[in-house]
Amino acid sequence: MHILIIGAAGMVGRKLTAALIASSGIGDKPIERLTLVDIVAPDAPPTDIPTSTLALDLSVPGAADRLIEGRPELIFHLAAIVSGEAEADFDKGYAINLDGTRLLLEAIRQQDTDEPYCPRLVFTSSIAVFGEPLPPAIPDHMAHTPLTSYGTQKAICELLLADYSRRGFVDGIGIRLPTIVVRPGKPNKAASGFFSGIIREPLNGMEAVLPVDETVRHWFASPRAAIDFLLHAARLDTAPLGQRRTLTMPGLSATIAEEIAALERFAGPAAVRLIRREPDQTIARIVAGWPQNFDTRRALELGFRAETSFDDIVRTHIEDELGGRLPG
Amino acid sequence: MHILIIGAAGMVGRKLTAALIASSGIGDKPIERLTLVDIVAPDAPPTDIPTSTLALDLSVPGAADRLIEGRPELIFHLAAIVSGEAEADFDKGYAINLDGTRLLLEAIRQQDTDEPYCPRLVFTSSIAVFGEPLPPAIPDHMAHTPLTSYGTQKAICELLLADYSRRGFVDGIGIRLPTIVVRPGKPNKAASGFFSGIIREPLNGMEAVLPVDETVRHWFASPRAAIDFLLHAARLDTAPLGQRRTLTMPGLSATIAEEIAALERFAGPAAVRLIRREPDQTIARIVAGWPQNFDTRRALELGFRAETSFDDIVRTHIEDELGGRLPG
Repeated sequence: MHILIIGAAGMVGRKLTAALIASSGIGDKPIERLTLVDIVAPDAPPTDIPTSTLALDLSVPGAADRLIEGRPELIFHLAAIVSGEAEADFDKGYAINLDGTRLLLEAIRQQDTDEPYCPRLVFTSSIAVFGEPLPPAIPDHMAHTPLTSYGTQKAICELLLADYSRRGFVDGIGIRLPTIVVRPGKPNKAASGFFSGIIREPLNGMEAVLPVDETVRHWFASPRAAIDFLLHAARLDTAPLGQRRTLTMPGLSATIAEEIAALERFAGPAAVRLIRREPDQTIARIVAGWPQNFDTRRALELGFRAETSFDDIVRTHIEDELGGRLPG
Repeated sequence: MHILIIGAAGMVGRKLTAALIASSGIGDKPIERLTLVDIVAPDAPPTDIPTSTLALDLSVPGAADRLIEGRPELIFHLAAIVSGEAEADFDKGYAINLDGTRLLLEAIRQQDTDEPYCPRLVFTSSIAVFGEPLPPAIPDHMAHTPLTSYGTQKAICELLLADYSRRGFVDGIGIRLPTIVVRPGKPNKAASGFFSGIIREPLNGMEAVLPVDETVRHWFASPRAAIDFLLHAARLDTAPLGQRRTLTMPGLSATIAEEIAALERFAGPAAVRLIRREPDQTIARIVAGWPQNFDTRRALELGFRAETSFDDIVRTHIEDELGGRLPG
């Protein structure tokens, strides 16, 4: 099986590549070839599987055709301009997040003209497709009223994925990821960065800033759960999805206070004291517009699984990023 | 006020043009100029208002810019490839229904760069944005799972309209029209054509074919109600819409049996005998997938009004198309 990962250089893309290499394949099909693509060339992973790495801008006409020429049987499309950048640069957000995805779908459809071709396409959507008014737990059958251009672009791609799948051009499945915590690596500038920071830094004996109130509730899953979602989506029988090709993934609805309590159980009150309260009205306002809880029974019925406590999320981080034990 | 109508040559476009000319303007603004556009040049209407008529394909790059150069303050965008054609010709449907609308929105956004420009844009969407699973009465906050490429394209345009409005590029409002009955003119090949035909032809002493069962329920409004929706949308304060810029218009949920009963009250049993039952499995299957009833409280609260009985719909047809009395 030939697998193409678009957006392979990001955190999720790298973990997915490693998981695929460590796996025995997808279902009963071994992996025969990997094509790893991003706006910058991804690092070549350590593997005997023949692997191509490629720097490519999906929004440039012809780029998607070049990727699809090799007729990959499984495609992960993870590439996107993130929310803040898509809001700041209207043209760039639409070019990458909408046109890039549409060009990919069109390249797949055009490839079908010579010889039948209908690859599995796993697309990462976002809970940003949902906006006001928000019910206490958002079900899959709730209308999309995104509050950002990023959410708009993801919602449009979900519609395209469903239509191209209905017409038999692609076998698409979209998954709306929760906010991923604990993200490994250095702090970044994303408005959601503190959700990871207040666990990651104190576990390393470093200070972290908390810009919002402890009562703030949000929707979480670990990086490991995100990779499991992607692999499960790649293997799933898509027939039961019908015309509703995108699902909100399961996650954990938790408050900042619950995050901090989990941190204390693993690393004690000294770690908690490393969290510095520094209220930021801008971040607080952004976060207030985010959904807090979802009704994910469709995804659960289809076998998708995530953590059910913040302790599980912290434990996963310690196992996967810290070699199973706390530093120092 | 300069008003642009895109799709002015169709039934709704022609009636809207006539209604605008007969009106005293929009709010307190008199109409100073009309631009009427369609894929074929619309007929010049009888009026003293300076009027341009223009044949133009909105999906051709540059076409929308040409229309927006004149900085119309009010734009009605009614143009679309209909459902059956968008399903038969995938490329054409996306080109006109998606790219055409996006090019229009982009032309409006680009016009804003020199001097502030934010016109009111009234867009006709469709109940085809809704698909399975359908609740008994579909509310505005239900997810869009369209069963056709046409419905997909309309749903995408609704998202674009909302995002461009949120960003302040346009003051958009979308209205999802019910099936319009009684359509004047000759029978057409649309799968929904019989809903009008079984009233229109018998009132003219002519035979009509009924391809589905009398228990079939559907969602209706008259052409007069459709024009009222458009004019109300043009005048409405859009602030209460928030991010939800498109509304399902009110309508009448009625069965074929109720249609026929109304016909009999106006034209007697002889007219009803002109309806010939000729079951058509293909049409029956298409119609079975269509929604039957909507919860339109948002539109009602905002002052949109439609007929509340099929007698009203038949009476409107007799008044507007038959000079107020039955022929013969």
